[in-house]
Amino acid sequence: MTADPRLAKLSLNQRTTERWSVREAVDGCVRAGIPAIGLWREPVAEIGVPAAASLVADAGLRVSSLCRGGFLTAADAAARAEALADNRRAVDEAAGLGTDCLVLVVGGLPPGSRDLAGARARVADALTELAPYAGERGVRLALEPLHPMYCADRAVLSTLGQALDLAEAFPVDQVGVVVDTFHVWWDPDVWRQIARAGARIASFQVCDFLTPLPADVLLGRGMMGDGHIDFPPLRRAVAAAGYTGDTEVEIFNAEVWATDPDQVVATMVERYVELVLAD
Amino acid sequence: MTADPRLAKLSLNQRTTERWSVREAVDGCVRAGIPAIGLWREPVAEIGVPAAASLVADAGLRVSSLCRGGFLTAADAAARAEALADNRRAVDEAAGLGTDCLVLVVGGLPPGSRDLAGARARVADALTELAPYAGERGVRLALEPLHPMYCADRAVLSTLGQALDLAEAFPVDQVGVVVDTFHVWWDPDVWRQIARAGARIASFQVCDFLTPLPADVLLGRGMMGDGHIDFPPLRRAVAAAGYTGDTEVEIFNAEVWATDPDQVVATMVERYVELVLAD
Repeated sequence: MTADPRLAKLSLNQRTTERWSVREAVDGCVRAGIPAIGLWREPVAEIGVPAAASLVADAGLRVSSLCRGGFLTAADAAARAEALADNRRAVDEAAGLGTDCLVLVVGGLPPGSRDLAGARARVADALTELAPYAGERGVRLALEPLHPMYCADRAVLSTLGQALDLAEAFPVDQVGVVVDTFHVWWDPDVWRQIARAGARIASFQVCDFLTPLPADVLLGRGMMGDGHIDFPPLRRAVAAAGYTGDTEVEIFNAEVWATDPDQVVATMVERYVELVLAD
Repeated sequence: MTADPRLAKLSLNQRTTERWSVREAVDGCVRAGIPAIGLWREPVAEIGVPAAASLVADAGLRVSSLCRGGFLTAADAAARAEALADNRRAVDEAAGLGTDCLVLVVGGLPPGSRDLAGARARVADALTELAPYAGERGVRLALEPLHPMYCADRAVLSTLGQALDLAEAFPVDQVGVVVDTFHVWWDPDVWRQIARAGARIASFQVCDFLTPLPADVLLGRGMMGDGHIDFPPLRRAVAAAGYTGDTEVEIFNAEVWATDPDQVVATMVERYVELVLAD
């Protein structure tokens, strides 16, 4: 099919079509005219990095990101060493897949701990160990601030400003940030922080914020247009900051996952053009 | 009973004992040695402001706050006029109850709207109309930033910093802010903002942040000790900023509401002493 120029920077994050394998997601992107894909480590591991890299390359796609490393808040030495080792493996996998963007979800409070400052300090420490390793392999650690409702159990990194405070201690090619509309749309400081981020922006992810939130709040990510987010101002701010990379659609949503993936992709393309690219 | 000096600044927000009427909550405070109560407009309306004021005064209690005014984001003129009128009534009720603190929950996005900046601007406009009215009656509008997970549907005011940006346009005796541990504990900027708040702090509310959040995320407020918040640093920061008022315990939680209110109050007193007053 002839490439639709409006889709030139669109990427399917494969969790949006959760039931698809890497091969199926790659094929789905090709059918829909989507030129890029965000991969997850678990489905990649089912076939191995070389096979996944070949599938993507043979289809003429690019890998916009690998999800994900992180979970760097453990206090005990053994768990911490294992987390660092796992993140090095994730860097290697990103390099093997030909993407320079490894998304990091930094982890929540360790079980039973109320030491938020300590958990945040351990993330900073871990980056000191991981950033050079990533940089040497041409991979950038993309710190993803998560919505504050996940602060306790998933990511003690809660705002873009906080992510930039961490990232700026490292070279720009070693540590960047993710701007995900779901996580940042509410932040009154987001415009200033996106401008500040500039070349630190390693990934731009979109999905909508739904209310009421579902019983599992991790699944409150909706198709664009189904929630409360006004996308074009965020898209324009990220572009004005100098970001020229892909826009990845990443949706965790039980209803979306229960829908035929080709239909999900078709809706995603339609909503992307209508609601994200809108002036 | 002899007053316990450790409870000298403790207040029961009456929603914590949701099934109690004003009279029952006042009696419960007296039985537990709690010297202050945070009232809600709906139960007060059941007996009228003068009767509620008499009950509280006759029991020797003080009213630490009245909840709540706000909901100031409507775009259409009629809804907006009604909201302003309702807030003036709330100010009058606060004055009649002898409290200088009227808590405002500012409201979410109007149905179908994605104009977050517009909603926020309308809150600022409404304050311009309401603040002098409140000040003339000895009442301070206490802006409550709500956790960002409520941005869409309950309060477009999401951080203490944003609340202070709004409040500082007005005299300190007209507009203050609420520091509620549930809403602010995750904020990496909270320490700087509490210090900045200083005499703007009109209310300090405590409860814990639970995970997993319940299906109705409004009810994720837990008894202190049941969640993830480390209270003493926040208590000390608020005190260091100059706040000398009450600490109100405000818990919305189905399990707490299903428990015998006297037992809830007993647990609350115990946890307050153990976990909030701890060094």
